[in-house]
Amino acid sequence: MTARPVMTREEVEAFLDREFPQIHLDGRIYRVEGVGDLAGRMSMAISGRHVRPGGTVSGPAMMTLADLAFYATILANIGPVGLAVTTNLSFNFLRKPALRRLVAECRLMKLGKRLAVGEVTISSEGSADPVCHATGTYSVPPDRA
Amino acid sequence: MTARPVMTREEVEAFLDREFPQIHLDGRIYRVEGVGDLAGRMSMAISGRHVRPGGTVSGPAMMTLADLAFYATILANIGPVGLAVTTNLSFNFLRKPALRRLVAECRLMKLGKRLAVGEVTISSEGSADPVCHATGTYSVPPDRA
Amino acid sequence: MTARPVMTREEVEAFLDREFPQIHLDGRIYRVEGVGDLAGRMSMAISGRHVRPGGTVSGPAMMTLADLAFYATILANIGPVGLAVTTNLSFNFLRKPALRRLVAECRLMKLGKRLAVGEVTISSEGSADPVCHATGTYSVPPDRA
Amino acid sequence: MTARPVMTREEVEAFLDREFPQIHLDGRIYRVEGVGDLAGRMSMAISGRHVRPGGTVSGPAMMTLADLAFYATILANIGPVGLAVTTNLSFNFLRKPALRRLVAECRLMKLGKRLAVGEVTISSEGSADPVCHATGTYSVPPDRA
Repeated sequence: MTARPVMTREEVEAFLDREFPQIHLDGRIYRVEGVGDLAGRMSMAISGRHVRPGGTVSGPAMMTLADLAFYATILANIGPVGLAVTTNLSFNFLRKPALRRLVAECRLMKLGKRLAVGEVTISSEGSADPVCHATGTYSVPPDRA
Repeated sequence: MTARPVMTREEVEAFLDREFPQIHLDGRIYRVEGVGDLAGRMSMAISGRHVRPGGTVSGPAMMTLADLAFYATILANIGPVGLAVTTNLSFNFLRKPALRRLVAECRLMKLGKRLAVGEVTISSEGSADPVCHATGTYSVPPDRA
Repeated sequence: MTARPVMTREEVEAFLDREFPQIHLDGRIYRVEGVGDLAGRMSMAISGRHVRPGGTVSGPAMMTLADLAFYATILANIGPVGLAVTTNLSFNFLRKPALRRLVAECRLMKLGKRLAVGEVTISSEGSADPVCHATGTYSVPPDRA
Repeated sequence: MTARPVMTREEVEAFLDREFPQIHLDGRIYRVEGVGDLAGRMSMAISGRHVRPGGTVSGPAMMTLADLAFYATILANIGPVGLAVTTNLSFNFLRKPALRRLVAECRLMKLGKRLAVGEVTISSEGSADPVCHATGTYSVPPDRA
């Protein structure tokens, strides 16, 4: 049994920089805040692009952050041996986020040979009330160790 | 009983331009292709920002398109009397999209006084096989006629 | 390429009778109405067990019917070579069903080597308005032909 | 602000007995184990009716338990002033449950004026690994205090 996570926070961030340079097209708005055993935390700075009428953050901005948080957490726990593919994502939007940094906490409920399943809870930085909850299923590449 | 849709394709597009100018920050990549009774069609041009390793389109690009297609379809069918708020979105990713325009077909299964529920099927332009299927629930503003 | 479906309606029903005798504990309330290429139809008689306050059918009754409809449709299209396992089911409840037979139409959007993904629309018999919509993902046994 | 929960475990169980006698048609298999602030726990005894090939518990049995756990938790937190209506339920099936009592832990992430949103985690009694995770959205009756 491998001790998890198998990659450090810095290694995950370097992998994302190399494989997904597009996520930094608006500046380095995404940050891997931490990785752990079946867990990970990612955050996102909010800019004009993500603002919606009523002074809130767009749903797609939150969905993008959730997908990245799942991806980073799975990566940290299985290693950079292939690409996990999103098969299902389901979101409940709970409250209007404030116009400040969003923090996404990911927890994997299952990390199997074929599928990883987890949940992400997104909150505005400094607030305890979640603004969005996501569950996700990812197909894990068969060629990993 | 109101005849639906209550807005034309051009009116919906003008409303989105005015209320959501952010969606055009990368150029006019989104297009309202048509609106109908409990139905709507939206498309999206793919650019470098949406590309992912393996020559495919990112999940968040498809999720953003789906959310917009739901929004435009609800708008066309209830009119610009307030803002529908996304409460739930659920996605199944079915196949890798090609690197060309994506087309999203939306169909509302329910348009009630409080909630609208529908589905969106996304395909690469010119292909019959869907790449992504979404279901969505939107809270409809109580002050509409 | 195999012509689909690979089992007839009668073969699917006989398989369910043999492998899932529990579904008939309240009498033969479930019926396989038809199978087709990536499609299937199943129905369910409503009895006192499924009634809820307000003269409607319970959510779990509809969820059970949807799961069976997915299962029968996958079975008809891959054959009785192993058991598909439900990995994800997502339901939107649209309207109150009447107290009469429910009909579930299943359509598979993907039937891959590892995963089958589809949707089920449930209506009260004789009504055009759907009462429940489900999407489902099933893990397909690797040992099938 | 009302102190939550507003009903005791015994009051919730008595309400279910009165309003949903159908759930006890196979004996008293469901038990409200506890209620708390935005939380609740429910359990279910497994009998032949719920068994599936391979010595496991059927998906519909778990879905029924999850729906009841949501319902009991919302009831305990808003009181018996009307009936919450399920609008969305989404399930991830994580592992095969053992053939023993299932325990469902419910946590509400939002209890608003119109919608309640929460999650349920189901485990086999005595096991730490969840077998099923559900998220649910319920429409809250407008006439509550």
